[in-house]
Amino acid sequence: MGWGARERGLVCGTLPPGRLNAITDVPGVRVGHRTLREGAVNTGVTAILPHDGNLYRRGVLAASHVINGFGKSVGLVQIEELGVLETPVLLTNTFSVAACSQALIRAAIEANADIGRATATVNPVVCECNDGHLSDIQAMAVSEAHAREALRSAHAGAVEEGSVGAGTGMVCFGFKGGIGSASRQFVLGGETRHLGVIALTNFGRPGDLVLPGGARAPHPDDGGDGERSAVAEKGSVIVVMATDIPLDYRQLLRVTRRCGAGLARLGAFWGHGSGDIALGFSTAVAFDHDEARDFVPAQRLNEARIDLLFQAAAEATEEAVLNALFAAEAIEGRDGHYRPALATLFAPRVGDA
Amino acid sequence: MGWGARERGLVCGTLPPGRLNAITDVPGVRVGHRTLREGAVNTGVTAILPHDGNLYRRGVLAASHVINGFGKSVGLVQIEELGVLETPVLLTNTFSVAACSQALIRAAIEANADIGRATATVNPVVCECNDGHLSDIQAMAVSEAHAREALRSAHAGAVEEGSVGAGTGMVCFGFKGGIGSASRQFVLGGETRHLGVIALTNFGRPGDLVLPGGARAPHPDDGGDGERSAVAEKGSVIVVMATDIPLDYRQLLRVTRRCGAGLARLGAFWGHGSGDIALGFSTAVAFDHDEARDFVPAQRLNEARIDLLFQAAAEATEEAVLNALFAAEAIEGRDGHYRPALATLFAPRVGDA
Amino acid sequence: MGWGARERGLVCGTLPPGRLNAITDVPGVRVGHRTLREGAVNTGVTAILPHDGNLYRRGVLAASHVINGFGKSVGLVQIEELGVLETPVLLTNTFSVAACSQALIRAAIEANADIGRATATVNPVVCECNDGHLSDIQAMAVSEAHAREALRSAHAGAVEEGSVGAGTGMVCFGFKGGIGSASRQFVLGGETRHLGVIALTNFGRPGDLVLPGGARAPHPDDGGDGERSAVAEKGSVIVVMATDIPLDYRQLLRVTRRCGAGLARLGAFWGHGSGDIALGFSTAVAFDHDEARDFVPAQRLNEARIDLLFQAAAEATEEAVLNALFAAEAIEGRDGHYRPALATLFAPRVGDA
Amino acid sequence: MGWGARERGLVCGTLPPGRLNAITDVPGVRVGHRTLREGAVNTGVTAILPHDGNLYRRGVLAASHVINGFGKSVGLVQIEELGVLETPVLLTNTFSVAACSQALIRAAIEANADIGRATATVNPVVCECNDGHLSDIQAMAVSEAHAREALRSAHAGAVEEGSVGAGTGMVCFGFKGGIGSASRQFVLGGETRHLGVIALTNFGRPGDLVLPGGARAPHPDDGGDGERSAVAEKGSVIVVMATDIPLDYRQLLRVTRRCGAGLARLGAFWGHGSGDIALGFSTAVAFDHDEARDFVPAQRLNEARIDLLFQAAAEATEEAVLNALFAAEAIEGRDGHYRPALATLFAPRVGDA
Repeated sequence: MGWGARERGLVCGTLPPGRLNAITDVPGVRVGHRTLREGAVNTGVTAILPHDGNLYRRGVLAASHVINGFGKSVGLVQIEELGVLETPVLLTNTFSVAACSQALIRAAIEANADIGRATATVNPVVCECNDGHLSDIQAMAVSEAHAREALRSAHAGAVEEGSVGAGTGMVCFGFKGGIGSASRQFVLGGETRHLGVIALTNFGRPGDLVLPGGARAPHPDDGGDGERSAVAEKGSVIVVMATDIPLDYRQLLRVTRRCGAGLARLGAFWGHGSGDIALGFSTAVAFDHDEARDFVPAQRLNEARIDLLFQAAAEATEEAVLNALFAAEAIEGRDGHYRPALATLFAPRVGDA
Repeated sequence: MGWGARERGLVCGTLPPGRLNAITDVPGVRVGHRTLREGAVNTGVTAILPHDGNLYRRGVLAASHVINGFGKSVGLVQIEELGVLETPVLLTNTFSVAACSQALIRAAIEANADIGRATATVNPVVCECNDGHLSDIQAMAVSEAHAREALRSAHAGAVEEGSVGAGTGMVCFGFKGGIGSASRQFVLGGETRHLGVIALTNFGRPGDLVLPGGARAPHPDDGGDGERSAVAEKGSVIVVMATDIPLDYRQLLRVTRRCGAGLARLGAFWGHGSGDIALGFSTAVAFDHDEARDFVPAQRLNEARIDLLFQAAAEATEEAVLNALFAAEAIEGRDGHYRPALATLFAPRVGDA
Repeated sequence: MGWGARERGLVCGTLPPGRLNAITDVPGVRVGHRTLREGAVNTGVTAILPHDGNLYRRGVLAASHVINGFGKSVGLVQIEELGVLETPVLLTNTFSVAACSQALIRAAIEANADIGRATATVNPVVCECNDGHLSDIQAMAVSEAHAREALRSAHAGAVEEGSVGAGTGMVCFGFKGGIGSASRQFVLGGETRHLGVIALTNFGRPGDLVLPGGARAPHPDDGGDGERSAVAEKGSVIVVMATDIPLDYRQLLRVTRRCGAGLARLGAFWGHGSGDIALGFSTAVAFDHDEARDFVPAQRLNEARIDLLFQAAAEATEEAVLNALFAAEAIEGRDGHYRPALATLFAPRVGDA
Repeated sequence: MGWGARERGLVCGTLPPGRLNAITDVPGVRVGHRTLREGAVNTGVTAILPHDGNLYRRGVLAASHVINGFGKSVGLVQIEELGVLETPVLLTNTFSVAACSQALIRAAIEANADIGRATATVNPVVCECNDGHLSDIQAMAVSEAHAREALRSAHAGAVEEGSVGAGTGMVCFGFKGGIGSASRQFVLGGETRHLGVIALTNFGRPGDLVLPGGARAPHPDDGGDGERSAVAEKGSVIVVMATDIPLDYRQLLRVTRRCGAGLARLGAFWGHGSGDIALGFSTAVAFDHDEARDFVPAQRLNEARIDLLFQAAAEATEEAVLNALFAAEAIEGRDGHYRPALATLFAPRVGDA
């Protein structure tokens, strides 16, 4: 957490955040990171787990929305068809998707020996951004073991943000990007409910960032790094959204789509070369892999209440991106490429946070 | 009903039909027709009603699938977003969509004075095929009054098939087409459930029709009607599917998509100029327009059972098209255009039906 | 034109506008209005014509994107399949879609006697918003004749904005909305090219409007109009985008999608009850209805240049909405419902415009 | 090749096949296999290459259609957005997607050292079916080296069919499935053009197979293999379609969708547990990664000719599946699981082939 956007007086929207202002405000959700920083390698893996049970046996409702499809994420085809997440979500760099997929498959088999034998296979979900500007992506440095470490390290509570895990080598609006999180909460059905977001931010052209309140962020001082324009064309952003609100698939998809509005508010226009993907899940809707009943009781949201979730998704996404920017320190990476920190431009307000 | 495909020994698939072998096997579903045959005008309106209550106040779950979008149906955008049918479905010719839309709007306002004032507007659903080969479509002969008559005439029980209602001037695989219906039934959740289809058939190139059992139907004798090829390019088919099985929107959409498989089995390849659209609804899932609760209890199908519905949708669609073909008599329409009846080529089997 | 956002010091983005800062900067594009203000009726029709030839015979490339599908626009199904616009685009209120569709069909038949006879039918394109708060929408006051008048009045040059045509009774962020336009220009392929937008603005919750530079607009003083919240749920926005840049369908669709980013920058999150639809066309790509060749020469944009168009679409959409807001005067409509003008809050800068 | 469906008197549709009746009738297309049969492992890799140049530098137009998304293919998100294929297509088993992806990435980097450094990353395309019934899929036996061997072995000319490459362990309608290919040819623009298909067939319930001419294939004798029903739920089919016809993306997508019609004609209804995916590409449309021009000349098909391609796609898909079935010999795989050959039931006609 530390000094996020909110603590610097930059408030996104009007809904109140949850206690942690993080995706982990959604009960049961855990996040873990494995960071790799060695020589020209600045990369890693971030794991998001909807609950601590056997996800293959007890999947959760999921929906994905491709805002701009210049991306190499895996697992979305099946989510779109079936609406079920049956592995944790891993975030990593573009060329480590395969290693992370293998790790998820192997972990699923270890916990479910019948996979690919007496029952179906498993659909690993891995999303990615290209951190090639600051990291030697050709090295394919992430191993299955690293992915397993990210999974094992997942925990509830505050989310480590900035240059950690998959965010280690990311660049956002020309500044150092990375991992950020935020949440919103409100009362529905007589109970406090949550909607949280974790973002892997690697998008936006230098000079395009607009802050809440309307100031345009200054053009980043890149310390003489001349490949600025190239950076812009190789970005991406992954938004993983969690909620404990019961929805049906169509409703969750509608809410997930609003993450794109949060990105646009920051000045993004979902650039050509940016793989902008939102993935949402609800911990309130479970699917029993071995379901015996023909019909399963469920709950859906009264659609007339859904604007509240739309607003929350847009606001939390905007804030998660800013939190990533504020948490990430300046870094010198591959071949002397340098990215400054946005935080140095915005001091936290005394007495806040 | 009369002598359908089944009574002629042409059985589509392996699941048993419902009692009526029609969409009206789904309890509550009613069908009405208004046929216009006067001079060069051979057209009409067909109405399908999910239940006999106030549909605006108590909508039903709906999903649409555009198999090939060379068509002018209205209402699908909102169904795709919200998954709710809030008016009856009207079928008609391409240039009478507007009159039918107006009729649905006016009927909804009559029953709900708050529409467009204290509450939202209403989304009329009208699907169409081009009957211009046999009817003077430029005449725009269908009036709002005709549409209201189709609505009023709707009833449960056997569905009138062939050259009636919207099917009056339609052409299918070069033969006279029109309205056809079929259904399947099976036990789920300990109860008998139904899936029924009504099809407005105006598609398929002469010579392409393949019958169950594999015989290719003979090329229709068009009585010297030389505009045969033109016919092929101006087709379309609308499939309206109903079920009393509780599903969520994603599941209903998956089932609705399988109507296209039924068309392909007949030799169609969803031709360029054919507006092939499937629209499904479930009477088992209702939406209260004035819902006060934040969360609404629902049921979804165990997805592992859904193949049964897929099979039913494909089989019932195939059979509904054949039933339309067998029920439609030869007709001479606009400018001496003539379409023969398929029925004359396939005598019913003695002792059947 | 008059005093738009730009003349008030509110500049959207960084690209320069065209000469008129309107959709009519795209050569050949014409806009016409027919306004109806009589008693409780405050509505109308707006026509957008891509060129002044026979559109059915020489269609233009088109693509549509449904941002949020709580809407009743017609013609989008076929545009999505075929990528061709073959009639002008009409904008109107929700319950006048049918009259406008009929007008387009009849106009097309008058110019092309073979429609529905020797050749296919025609796909009318009509988009709508619900102006029921300020107008008696149940009156269905727009006639085919009104639509024809809007078509006939279409002209190049400056676009009349605010409470005119389809915009007469619209409401936007609680203020009086209506018609707005804006454009961007840049050099591609050695020539100056344009991208223009016309928006029918009827969306946004009171209090949510964020202006360029970041100020949040004050909550509108509704003069005691107590139905404020109801307004928010009955909105919609239609964005029609034109360009003279040669693209293929996929590229045009990508650009059209970015209109949604422009809306989000204003504080919108594409609300549940808002039918937010973007429709783009390119005058640089024509389709000959009677094409004789098997293959047709075409041009596509180098995809590496497309960010320029993305940016232009987002910026022009944002600015067109603001121009609508600034051009619309306060109005008292149906049942004493009142909407104030945003313009009274933002004086134009002396010496500008 | 050998004795395919056609040589056994089973003709799909009416269009003539190309010289090889294979995807390699499309000039430049090459196919390679690497088969793994060792102990309980019966699996492999199949490679399809659009041309023999540097695909990353000179991509080809591509489009994908997810018929039923119970599948784990990778690379489709970016193809849907950009319409470009920039690596060969690899087919393999579900748990070897990662190894094949890595192989494609590494091969692309070897040929283009700037990937992930001075230019963007690369989008590997790998499609899969689950061969777990006959092969030990948990073994993840396919290595990057195997994938590279499949790529290296690719050649023009006749396509090896049946239990080879990715088809080694596949099951189709209860019979032994695998790799099959077919093509159609016709004259457009004054030249002979081709449309070819290669299918990896692992779908269909035992007893559902319908042959051209309408005979229903007998229920396979499974030699006492009691897990028949489980087989049906774990299937999939991948159809890769190639053509040398110039199209734009939208047109190619329309054609690619018709592969699903070919599957339906065989009695499939695109089952719940079947990942049915069609991927099309056109060798006639190239994309220069380093394109310098703002606009690129292109050609599109006169849409009025597209039915020919629709028909070809449906027919070639149907025939490719049958060719896979006829080419595959009976096999005993993992844990004594046995699949009989369809060929033993249909003798080739003397004097044919």
